Amino acid sequence: MMKLYDTQRSGNAWKVRLLARLLNKPLQRVTLSIDRGNLGDAEFLKRSPLGMVPVLELEDGRTIGESIAILQFLAHGTPWWPITALDQAYVLMWLSFEQSQHMHPLAQLRLHLSLRRDREAGDEDMVRFKVEAEHALRLLDEQLARQGSSGWVATQTHPSIADVALYPYTRLASMGGIDLETFQNVLPWLARIERLPGYQPLFPGRADLNFATVEMADKTK
Amino acid sequence: MMKLYDTQRSGNAWKVRLLARLLNKPLQRVTLSIDRGNLGDAEFLKRSPLGMVPVLELEDGRTIGESIAILQFLAHGTPWWPITALDQAYVLMWLSFEQSQHMHPLAQLRLHLSLRRDREAGDEDMVRFKVEAEHALRLLDEQLARQGSSGWVATQTHPSIADVALYPYTRLASMGGIDLETFQNVLPWLARIERLPGYQPLFPGRADLNFATVEMADKTK
Repeated sequence: MMKLYDTQRSGNAWKVRLLARLLNKPLQRVTLSIDRGNLGDAEFLKRSPLGMVPVLELEDGRTIGESIAILQFLAHGTPWWPITALDQAYVLMWLSFEQSQHMHPLAQLRLHLSLRRDREAGDEDMVRFKVEAEHALRLLDEQLARQGSSGWVATQTHPSIADVALYPYTRLASMGGIDLETFQNVLPWLARIERLPGYQPLFPGRADLNFATVEMADKTK
Repeated sequence: MMKLYDTQRSGNAWKVRLLARLLNKPLQRVTLSIDRGNLGDAEFLKRSPLGMVPVLELEDGRTIGESIAILQFLAHGTPWWPITALDQAYVLMWLSFEQSQHMHPLAQLRLHLSLRRDREAGDEDMVRFKVEAEHALRLLDEQLARQGSSGWVATQTHPSIADVALYPYTRLASMGGIDLETFQNVLPWLARIERLPGYQPLFPGRADLNFATVEMADKTK
């Protein structure tokens, strides 16, 4: 069985677990701890030349890093990774947007305002991240409007790995003080993803604790 | 003919022009000016939902943004974009690394220490970017060592778009005060790329001004 090296709270790793469930491909999860320094272990660094989770380990021991690459690898040959050059380009465009504009401000707001609680919403950097996060969510919202109510972020007839990649940090945005109600195409899109067969929340089996409370509890373990 | 919307100094756009030359695919270049605010023009924003260059416009008017997506689209069906899921995943892994770890610190150092000259190398943020840039170059150097002297960043027998993507900001690193001599696998790799048929520098036809002086001259126009 393939192994996924992740951490408890990594949104990038959640994308991979979510896709694996949607594809019904089993993955053995190996959860590392940033606090215990597992990401600096020599054993892990042998598997992860980039020193980051998520890392997918194939049965023959070869490894793939970076969530964009892992998602493409798992989805290859399925409807989640389309076939033509242009359709693949649209998927990659939104995967790249997620990594370069969308994820970072949303992750920073969530980290400092909810997980660590070491900043105030009015702090200069938090205000800047909020502007960037809302800009990214507006671009996503406009794209969903262009695609229509039966379309997906980068594709029309079937969701793609771009939907899977953009889902987690969008779903967790409220932990960073973002009001998703102002993005009228985003909430129905999140709901459609959550109705897909195989959908899995960040903390499976603890529905009452998704998507906020458990994060706080986990911190103290 | 396809059109490429770029700016004079964009490294992400240089990647696309470089690949187009290596593939011998003609592109009409439409160069916008950040200083004149062209990137906020309604005409451009219609073509670029993400509001950024580079943007590739196809003959039928459809557009693709984000350099990873444009590179994949242009290279699809050529040896620069390999065929199997695993080979594609390795290429995407290094494309994603370039966008997430490599490009940003190198671009910031170049911008502030050479183009704008509005910071000193000893400033706190410049010191941090230098640490990040050298870390990224070390990861690239180690990967090139693993691949061997006849291999490429993500592939073995033929270079891929990962080489094209990692080339520009690595090539320009010295403008940000980075000494490339300390990365012993990097300089021979840059030289091998520069010997490929079709290779094109950032400012074609002004070889004496690549890769530093022209940038300063351009600023004053």
